[in-house]
Amino acid sequence: MAHITLKNDRLPGIVGLFDYRPDTARPLNELAEILLRGPSTLTPGERELIAASVSNWNQCHFCHSSHGAAAAAHLKTGITLLDDIKADLKQTKISPKLRALLEIAKQVQQGGRHVTKTAIKAARHQGATDLEIHDTVLIAAAFCMYNRYVDGLGTWAPGPKEAYVDVGQRLATMGYVNFRPPADSGSGRP
Amino acid sequence: MAHITLKNDRLPGIVGLFDYRPDTARPLNELAEILLRGPSTLTPGERELIAASVSNWNQCHFCHSSHGAAAAAHLKTGITLLDDIKADLKQTKISPKLRALLEIAKQVQQGGRHVTKTAIKAARHQGATDLEIHDTVLIAAAFCMYNRYVDGLGTWAPGPKEAYVDVGQRLATMGYVNFRPPADSGSGRP
Repeated sequence: MAHITLKNDRLPGIVGLFDYRPDTARPLNELAEILLRGPSTLTPGERELIAASVSNWNQCHFCHSSHGAAAAAHLKTGITLLDDIKADLKQTKISPKLRALLEIAKQVQQGGRHVTKTAIKAARHQGATDLEIHDTVLIAAAFCMYNRYVDGLGTWAPGPKEAYVDVGQRLATMGYVNFRPPADSGSGRP
Repeated sequence: MAHITLKNDRLPGIVGLFDYRPDTARPLNELAEILLRGPSTLTPGERELIAASVSNWNQCHFCHSSHGAAAAAHLKTGITLLDDIKADLKQTKISPKLRALLEIAKQVQQGGRHVTKTAIKAARHQGATDLEIHDTVLIAAAFCMYNRYVDGLGTWAPGPKEAYVDVGQRLATMGYVNFRPPADSGSGRP
């Protein structure tokens, strides 16, 4: 049970929190929409991989599963991608540039002061632009927020990865600002 | 020097980043405005104290100083409040409820899964409402983002606390969405 009484306790993770406090939901969704789906030289699939990886490092099951499923929908990999994100994408073919950006994201997850000039230089060497580095840092930082919001309030989340296939498809097609949860989003509710 | 080339490298901390990427600045400022200055049973000064404390625990000098100075402006304590925030507000008179909420914020800073039912119960015992607990968790989570954004991109910040008195006054009166930096915001630029 969440640490506070939500209006609809069948809505999982951040969805129930957005329903509880629509005023803060608005900028939180706008930020996700711009960062993960707005115009960028990184594909939405690559950006969702960054989001899902940071969520995994923060041990946020709901965000790792939702954004991993969104990445799987964009990249058409199948839902086993969630397992590979936990293995730092050892099995998924990603570009050397994305791998270098993921290293920066990992440092951001540890703390802002952990980012090294060496990691920035390595990303540039693989062709990363200033804007790609900026957005990687902000995506990683933003998921350090979303993850803490979801788990800090003790929200519930479906367990098995298969339960996230539908939400991943919806995030990949509807996006964040226009997202509507599946009618059966309470399935798996403990 | 920041890790990326900003448009105006005389603007410190997050101000230079907002200038670099106005699209993401908009929801980031809207979120701060609602959380720190919107309608709430916590005063703006109390909420700025939570923001400044989290920033201190994350060792983000720019955010600790700016939001500490905003708290000082709201609470009319003088800029030495910044030193006391570093000492976990041992010298400043704050309510038992705010102290209990700060304990939750400290757990959020460590990670979403660190928040305990004991800390939630203790805050409730001091009269904290669900919405106050929600907003405390989200403020703490949001500053885990802002702090990582500012330091993860290696931005510069003025050193001495006295350099933040003006920005603190501006944040307390103009707020976030309408914030304009002082004309001499580059003073102290290394």
